[in-house]
Amino acid sequence: MEDNDKGITAKKSEDISEWYVQAVLKSGMADYGPVQGTIVFMPYSYSIWEIVQEAFNRMIKGTGHSNAYFPMFIPENLLEKEAEHFEGFSPEVFWITKAGSRDLSERIAVRPTSETIIYYFMQKWVRSWKDLPLLLNQWCSVARAEIKATKPFLRTSEFLWQEGHTAHSTKEEAEKEASMILGFYKQIIEEYFAIPIIMGKKSESEKFAGAVYTYTLESMMPDGKAVQSGTSHYLGTNFSKPLGITFTDRDGNEKHIHTTSWGISTRLIGALIMEHGDDKGLVLPPRLAPIQVVIVPIYKAEEEMHKVLDFSNEVKSQLANAGIRVKLDDRDDRSPGYKFNDWELKGVPIRLEIGPRELQSKTLVISRRDTGKKSKAEYSSLTGTINDTLKLIQEGMFKSANERLKSMTFEVSSYDDFKRYIGKGFVKANWCGSESCEAKIKEDTTATNRAIPLDEHKKGKCVVCGKETDIIAYFAKSY
Amino acid sequence: MEDNDKGITAKKSEDISEWYVQAVLKSGMADYGPVQGTIVFMPYSYSIWEIVQEAFNRMIKGTGHSNAYFPMFIPENLLEKEAEHFEGFSPEVFWITKAGSRDLSERIAVRPTSETIIYYFMQKWVRSWKDLPLLLNQWCSVARAEIKATKPFLRTSEFLWQEGHTAHSTKEEAEKEASMILGFYKQIIEEYFAIPIIMGKKSESEKFAGAVYTYTLESMMPDGKAVQSGTSHYLGTNFSKPLGITFTDRDGNEKHIHTTSWGISTRLIGALIMEHGDDKGLVLPPRLAPIQVVIVPIYKAEEEMHKVLDFSNEVKSQLANAGIRVKLDDRDDRSPGYKFNDWELKGVPIRLEIGPRELQSKTLVISRRDTGKKSKAEYSSLTGTINDTLKLIQEGMFKSANERLKSMTFEVSSYDDFKRYIGKGFVKANWCGSESCEAKIKEDTTATNRAIPLDEHKKGKCVVCGKETDIIAYFAKSY
Repeated sequence: MEDNDKGITAKKSEDISEWYVQAVLKSGMADYGPVQGTIVFMPYSYSIWEIVQEAFNRMIKGTGHSNAYFPMFIPENLLEKEAEHFEGFSPEVFWITKAGSRDLSERIAVRPTSETIIYYFMQKWVRSWKDLPLLLNQWCSVARAEIKATKPFLRTSEFLWQEGHTAHSTKEEAEKEASMILGFYKQIIEEYFAIPIIMGKKSESEKFAGAVYTYTLESMMPDGKAVQSGTSHYLGTNFSKPLGITFTDRDGNEKHIHTTSWGISTRLIGALIMEHGDDKGLVLPPRLAPIQVVIVPIYKAEEEMHKVLDFSNEVKSQLANAGIRVKLDDRDDRSPGYKFNDWELKGVPIRLEIGPRELQSKTLVISRRDTGKKSKAEYSSLTGTINDTLKLIQEGMFKSANERLKSMTFEVSSYDDFKRYIGKGFVKANWCGSESCEAKIKEDTTATNRAIPLDEHKKGKCVVCGKETDIIAYFAKSY
Repeated sequence: MEDNDKGITAKKSEDISEWYVQAVLKSGMADYGPVQGTIVFMPYSYSIWEIVQEAFNRMIKGTGHSNAYFPMFIPENLLEKEAEHFEGFSPEVFWITKAGSRDLSERIAVRPTSETIIYYFMQKWVRSWKDLPLLLNQWCSVARAEIKATKPFLRTSEFLWQEGHTAHSTKEEAEKEASMILGFYKQIIEEYFAIPIIMGKKSESEKFAGAVYTYTLESMMPDGKAVQSGTSHYLGTNFSKPLGITFTDRDGNEKHIHTTSWGISTRLIGALIMEHGDDKGLVLPPRLAPIQVVIVPIYKAEEEMHKVLDFSNEVKSQLANAGIRVKLDDRDDRSPGYKFNDWELKGVPIRLEIGPRELQSKTLVISRRDTGKKSKAEYSSLTGTINDTLKLIQEGMFKSANERLKSMTFEVSSYDDFKRYIGKGFVKANWCGSESCEAKIKEDTTATNRAIPLDEHKKGKCVVCGKETDIIAYFAKSY
């Protein structure tokens, strides 16, 4: 890549859409695939996903879940069995009709999600209460034909996710599961991605096709649009009844299983970029940054070079041994200035410059990517100082994102105010609960009901129809 | 599952094909999918795959490789660009022709392998020697329509694998890469799977479509059939020339990149089952066993139960804290005898029985799954004894597999002997190097040339045509 292609030429505050695409492509996060709406997850974004996998695997394995891998091919007749669910996905399904030169006797869907195929197996595997609960998860890609407004990570025709699917003998246990996973997601999104979220249930018209109810985690981007960042569904017996999946309970009675499903996807990486980035590029929270500290050696003479590189390597080893993800940029064909820009573009949380002066004083300068602030650190206590700084950055990034979220949440009581603020962030308002009022909002503003917060009620009048209600909801335009 | 369905009813020595399928299904490794030739990788096999991923990731990341994820959708025109390669895969390609109700203007292939799509990106990403080497790997599933003789893990229409794809500025560097990976694979297969392998190059007619040469690792199953267990290809400029992928070298000249690709797949899990299993079920090598030690508590009276379970939990914690994968089977609705059979079926390397007697004596009995032998261990030094035993099992399993491999390798010098031994294992013979002699062997016996060992030569006469040669090759029937 030529040097003059390197930097982002759009301003985030002026043209966030153009800024976003440049940030994704120029930082080496993703590139466009040859089939419309597909992207490659380049090592720099994929290693973020690997960190997410490790963290989430720890949570779910610690609570008895196992990973598995189910076929990505679903025969058409199977997909059609659960009508409501199928209807929700059918416009987006990719259909295989040929294998080699053979015409297939039945069309095969590439999984848009795996409920159908997993229930096919649950039906075979579950006989008695002894087989329950079944706590399964898989990491895979899913395919949904997206033709309009595709955007790397945020909306693509193939993306990576995890999808959990569980079966339980009681409603209570299944509901507890859906709620526990919601808590895990909150932890992942807030503590790793440093993105504050609004949690709640989806309304009837916005919930997952086939769910009894859907928990959602919604984040707010700087441009005023919400991103659905994770969902956890209690499916009740909505799948097990039409599919006839039953078990013999301890009391000898035949009962339908209660199921859940839940997922987070690489869409979160899109939210991450949009949430924290600035005009110079990405700003990555330390817990997800593939490189947490970059060391840039600075020297002029050949003789200086060896000493500086030796010391840089010493610093690198010390940090690496303490489990810090550190990189020494020892490219000899790039200037320090070029390297500074490059690592700022890639959002590395901390930069250490090491030159003859640092070598002599054994005092290093820590530059923070998030605030741009510099501070000094003694070599003798470097690891501790770096770890403290990484922690401060992680917390600081969440704190400022949270302040932005608050400043972009508008509580309104009139439809005029609703329309004034919608598009600028979340609009929180009383809502009567009817689909017709949601439909009117969507028609007037293109905004949708993002979440009905849990356990939060306030008496008031529906912002659309004026009916008395104690339901509150968050509305926003969205990605 | 009913108890009488549990055990394997076929004998491995009598009907290995039926034995294999029962071992796979009854141990909970896999189950058949609704689309022909597809399987679900159930948690018990998937967790073996996770251990492989962790081990191999450590090797490749330690040598500068990164994981990424490339689109699974490849447009037809792209796939056709490299003719020889495409021809090799086209009979097996699954074609997508519709998205929702829309007909696609161009057919999309579901990746049978990713050379084509990855080279599409290499062409965009590689400009100068500074962009090289490019050392990429991905973990994903690939799809190849298999219609005949499908067998769980060994031959299916969708399977999991890793595929590495690297680009280099010189032939030497690329060849070194292909050879280094071959070494990693040998380590994985021998040290984790406890499967001894024959290494070598594939002949011209057996090599990967598009490769300059293919390194292969071949293992021998007890029924006399070989399994191709891993391949590493030096592709030279066979892809970069037709696709026009060049870079500017340090000397300012435009040159074609040299590439490699390499993969191991979940087929290895099939080899694992077939290699080590016995009439009771799986026998898993400790380094891959999802559960290395199972504790079966034994008690009669209620009062005994609590004491036995308390002590069992103590033992479990001690082993778990030492990093041993241990499970306490505390199901209260199953007899010890049922549990013994169950864990033998699943191939857990070590069983510990804990009853009132063990509680009192603080001496435990270690039962080995591989040999059936029992030995005593003091509670005070249990962790050390278990770790030593796991090591012994791992080594012992490799050793006996290696002895079997030797006893199933037949060095012959006449075509009569060749035909006598083929089908019973590897037949090692002089071969003139011609495709016509290979073709005759295939026609006469259905066996193929599995590998030409590296750096091994012996003067002699081609076993088919009698021509003088110093080439040696391993022939076998195969999965």
